[in-house]
Amino acid sequence: MLRDADATRRRLIDAAADEFSEHGIAGARVDRIAAASQSNKAQIYHYFGSKELLFDAVMNDIVTSTAGAVPITVDDLAGYAGRLFDAYEKDPRIPRLAMWYRLERPAEPARLDALTDTIKGQLGQIRAAQRAGGLPSAYRPADLLNLVLHMSFLWTFVFPELQAQLAKTSRAHRRRVLVDAVRVLLGEISPAG
Amino acid sequence: MLRDADATRRRLIDAAADEFSEHGIAGARVDRIAAASQSNKAQIYHYFGSKELLFDAVMNDIVTSTAGAVPITVDDLAGYAGRLFDAYEKDPRIPRLAMWYRLERPAEPARLDALTDTIKGQLGQIRAAQRAGGLPSAYRPADLLNLVLHMSFLWTFVFPELQAQLAKTSRAHRRRVLVDAVRVLLGEISPAG
Repeated sequence: MLRDADATRRRLIDAAADEFSEHGIAGARVDRIAAASQSNKAQIYHYFGSKELLFDAVMNDIVTSTAGAVPITVDDLAGYAGRLFDAYEKDPRIPRLAMWYRLERPAEPARLDALTDTIKGQLGQIRAAQRAGGLPSAYRPADLLNLVLHMSFLWTFVFPELQAQLAKTSRAHRRRVLVDAVRVLLGEISPAG
Repeated sequence: MLRDADATRRRLIDAAADEFSEHGIAGARVDRIAAASQSNKAQIYHYFGSKELLFDAVMNDIVTSTAGAVPITVDDLAGYAGRLFDAYEKDPRIPRLAMWYRLERPAEPARLDALTDTIKGQLGQIRAAQRAGGLPSAYRPADLLNLVLHMSFLWTFVFPELQAQLAKTSRAHRRRVLVDAVRVLLGEISPAG
């Protein structure tokens, strides 16, 4: 029975991730999620309580899987940004869900325990690396983490009007631009390349 | 008559900007926009054709006003990023509308003529400054513009879970972090500050 419940929950989360990624919270239809997961609306509300809480469950799930697949490497923050970029390329739902989360859920309180835990752990590692001299201490740890995470999204939300000027840019080139930018910010290379 | 029509259009755009900023396109209600602008749904559809085209009109309007108020300064791209940051702080609808645009409107074709014109003009200025030696030529112009624009959004979409670790950060500090990051990327200062 427990295994059945876990499998059902998994199926609902997967279908909800697709629906929310495409349409956001306001645009998502719980009946479409029910149909895609061979479930029904009553079951979804029983499991998650509301459309908003279902969205938070999807976010917690995707944060957990992304943090597991792409752990921070404080001795190579540029590589970390590059691997996050790879993860978004592989699953474009990740950056879209992240952005819906910021637009459609209240800014406070923070409610993704998986993300809070991940960030606290990352800040602890950055602090330790700064004390050991492996990372420049000119940055506050949270500022540095924000710079690296933000840089991983460099190509995610480019305006179509700028994208039109970038038509011939390869994925490898785009990856190199963001990885090199992080290396420049860390003083590992000079901007002249 | 023409002046009346302009005034009506202005009132509709202003009310729509508030509604779209808050709720996005899927979440926006045309009847709320009508009520807020002392108009009616028939008039809105007569002027703009659809909710999506009304959104595009709002975007074109906000791009035009932002580009006019904050012109690019190719001899001071870091300052340009800082002034964009100031514009977003003054009117938080700007970054929210930009993000809804990317999430809810198709990636192609580019349809904001005001933004296409602005970007083409900016790329021309960057190219000229690179030829004159005022900007590092290691960057492709569109890559450099994207880096600067992206950096202006450094603090706009910070996760609440990271924000909680930044609670005591002042606006001046946040501004300095993004301005200095652009200066580092341009080789104007070293990351050590």
